[in-house]
Amino acid sequence: MTTSIYSPLLTDFYQLTMAYGYWKLNMHEQDATFHLLFRKNPFNSNYALSCGLATVVDFLKNWRFHTDDLVYLSQLKASNGEILFSNDFLDYLSQLTFTCDVDAIPEGTIVFANEPLVRVEGPIIQCQLIETSLLNMINFQTLIATKASRVCRAAQGDPVIEFGMRRAQGPDGALSASRAAYVGGCVATSNTLAGKQYDIPVRGTHAHSWVTAFPNEISAFQAYAAIMPHHCILLVDTFNTIEGVKNAITVGQQLRAEGADLLGIRLDSGDMATLSIQTRKLLDDAGFANTSILASNSLDEYVITDLKQKNAAISVWGVGTSLATAYDQPALDGVYKLCALRDTQGEWNYKLKLSEQEVKISNPGRHQIRRFFCDNQYVMDVIYDLSLGIPDSPNTVSLDQSHQSIHLEGYDGFVDLLKPILRRGNMVQEQESIHDIRQHAMEAVEQFVSTQGNKTYPVSLEKTLFELKQRLIHAVK
Amino acid sequence: MTTSIYSPLLTDFYQLTMAYGYWKLNMHEQDATFHLLFRKNPFNSNYALSCGLATVVDFLKNWRFHTDDLVYLSQLKASNGEILFSNDFLDYLSQLTFTCDVDAIPEGTIVFANEPLVRVEGPIIQCQLIETSLLNMINFQTLIATKASRVCRAAQGDPVIEFGMRRAQGPDGALSASRAAYVGGCVATSNTLAGKQYDIPVRGTHAHSWVTAFPNEISAFQAYAAIMPHHCILLVDTFNTIEGVKNAITVGQQLRAEGADLLGIRLDSGDMATLSIQTRKLLDDAGFANTSILASNSLDEYVITDLKQKNAAISVWGVGTSLATAYDQPALDGVYKLCALRDTQGEWNYKLKLSEQEVKISNPGRHQIRRFFCDNQYVMDVIYDLSLGIPDSPNTVSLDQSHQSIHLEGYDGFVDLLKPILRRGNMVQEQESIHDIRQHAMEAVEQFVSTQGNKTYPVSLEKTLFELKQRLIHAVK
Repeated sequence: MTTSIYSPLLTDFYQLTMAYGYWKLNMHEQDATFHLLFRKNPFNSNYALSCGLATVVDFLKNWRFHTDDLVYLSQLKASNGEILFSNDFLDYLSQLTFTCDVDAIPEGTIVFANEPLVRVEGPIIQCQLIETSLLNMINFQTLIATKASRVCRAAQGDPVIEFGMRRAQGPDGALSASRAAYVGGCVATSNTLAGKQYDIPVRGTHAHSWVTAFPNEISAFQAYAAIMPHHCILLVDTFNTIEGVKNAITVGQQLRAEGADLLGIRLDSGDMATLSIQTRKLLDDAGFANTSILASNSLDEYVITDLKQKNAAISVWGVGTSLATAYDQPALDGVYKLCALRDTQGEWNYKLKLSEQEVKISNPGRHQIRRFFCDNQYVMDVIYDLSLGIPDSPNTVSLDQSHQSIHLEGYDGFVDLLKPILRRGNMVQEQESIHDIRQHAMEAVEQFVSTQGNKTYPVSLEKTLFELKQRLIHAVK
Repeated sequence: MTTSIYSPLLTDFYQLTMAYGYWKLNMHEQDATFHLLFRKNPFNSNYALSCGLATVVDFLKNWRFHTDDLVYLSQLKASNGEILFSNDFLDYLSQLTFTCDVDAIPEGTIVFANEPLVRVEGPIIQCQLIETSLLNMINFQTLIATKASRVCRAAQGDPVIEFGMRRAQGPDGALSASRAAYVGGCVATSNTLAGKQYDIPVRGTHAHSWVTAFPNEISAFQAYAAIMPHHCILLVDTFNTIEGVKNAITVGQQLRAEGADLLGIRLDSGDMATLSIQTRKLLDDAGFANTSILASNSLDEYVITDLKQKNAAISVWGVGTSLATAYDQPALDGVYKLCALRDTQGEWNYKLKLSEQEVKISNPGRHQIRRFFCDNQYVMDVIYDLSLGIPDSPNTVSLDQSHQSIHLEGYDGFVDLLKPILRRGNMVQEQESIHDIRQHAMEAVEQFVSTQGNKTYPVSLEKTLFELKQRLIHAVK
């Protein structure tokens, strides 16, 4: 268990058997284009927030098969007991580094179903071997950043702290979630390792066990205040919430006498609307108008919205399990599709996977996404092919079954979303800090939601790409 | 991101501020007893399957604060800008190793809500610092092992392969899930790193991209069969499932001519019941009665049960997202409660947390669980206190609000579930192999389900422990 989780073996086994196949057939250096995209916005939301790219880049920069990986692979056998992978192939893997081009939508961007978040282009063997890792990292962090964005919007500007580690899906389920939750708008995490690893602020109060370790609540509060006079948020519900608030006020007065103050109290059970209003009055009446009320206990965007509607006097929200696991939809349905393959003459052949469900038919080509704006508002995203290009006033066809045609004009600006990240495996430029990513994300959400509300946002194919896709569907059928 | 995820900083920040408090008050070496338990069986199941202990033991054996951890902690500040932790405290942490006693229910045991899965006893500072990590590891792996057990039961003995990595919750969300899914009864995983790290069999087929990388399906199948003649399971739905099966049969005949065989075909979309029956007939008619039909595509225990009822001709089940994320309930509600604290005279004081919800009132004491059997059937689990003990024919009180009293007799055997794992931080005995754990788990599930069905299983408190709890509740109130 001391092995790093960032290993090229962090991949579905079939990627390795396919890689072996490409290598044996001498197809392995053929250039391919893969797109990573999800098919449905999570949480019935009308947007998602891209996240996970920094983790992917870190993974790809260090992507090397080590001796112990190859020893492991050398022992694997087929059904008849024969060794699966030849030594020549394992020698080849031992020399392999990541040399593909990667273009991606920067972290913290508003994104939508069916848009390529990542385009990987290079030797098909490498594109294929990294598929599962990329999906794993982008799917999960995009899911959690989106969830965090929703929770923070429900909190209407109040600080939200991510508290999910104890019920997250494994140690890295917690770490990745803390990172993505911060990108999505949380102000801090309780996860100390995430704080160290990702430079995220860490916060906390104390546990019920602190209170029960002392003869009574007030002595526990007094002890905590003495140790942490300037980091004092008291958990008041170990025995009885209102009595706990009264004890906290007593301790707050002692803190003041010593030049400190009671930063906050924390509610963790019961009827949070009523209790918070009662607590606020007790605190205010005792002269603690600046003492925060932090709430935790099975919160999510729906519970927070409900508490806001009930005028709950909660000023800081600690959100755990539902945020760190995206409890109501714990997976994003991202896929990674081969969309073009360059033949030995250097020509790109566009590729397609059929399906009875239209949404599952892949879009052939090598794509870019152009986002059009008007008066600083989002107008439409148009997926276009790099070779076919996109005219100034493009004709577009909607991605849904209606195939609605729209001629787009009257916009006053656009941006192409996929940015160069790696060229031949090397970073094109330093990545933004997580704090800048978070700031951009919050601004983007504000910009999008303030004009778009909950309306579905249009994502279309540029018309010549749509027509090319239709021709390919007919040809394949 | 190169930092190990197995760090003592993998903990909620408040554990560190409380640890600092215990240390400053010179309470840190006081012996405490904490119990880790969950409050509700997951998935409306009448049992869970314990898992994650090996990960915990590995974590605790290597539990040391390293220089970079301490440097990180030394920089953290309180609200007034003062440094939070004193250098003396960080020096103390730098010397700290894990010296507690740990008793736990072995992995792969049938367990129930409210039963301590782990008892940690030793210096309160250590017990407290490891809380979040233990909860994280035990909660998630117990959840997934239980889910896997349910999926495997639905498959009625057919092999189930875990395919969840691409949509799992981060790299370790995938790894931990693969491990727990194997313990719960899966025969293999697609996760190559899990195969290497945990000695789990790895399996796979090929992707749609393999097919689309070739001019047509049959040439893709032929290429794969040539490369992997004894590992040949062909994915048939890239363009049209039935045509795909026909192409697979053609390739199967070529494989036979070369002394190999078509191991299987894989269905990944469409009406699986109908398609599998049609596929079975095509394969049988062509003389491929031994070729397996593997199904994947949003499977879980409910879909599998439904397909079984429709007589689907599926012989191997590839289960991904719903298994690796426990999609319908992605978190187990485990908690970790201080239940006893030894005073300076060496006397144990029993501890209690109150709550308006009876189920959330903690059980004071230092516990063991006795499981009673009769005719090899599970009769009842009884939680008792180590000091109060348990008589031969115990009086018991049910944990629910009915407080039903039962005098237990007529059983013909029992076992105490919590086993010594660590003594003063050292392993008491080598742990079982994952294969043995899995075997015991499958036998235990079979034994439990064959007699208990879906009936709720009784878990009670030994009566003198119940009475002690009531006295403490009154005293605290």
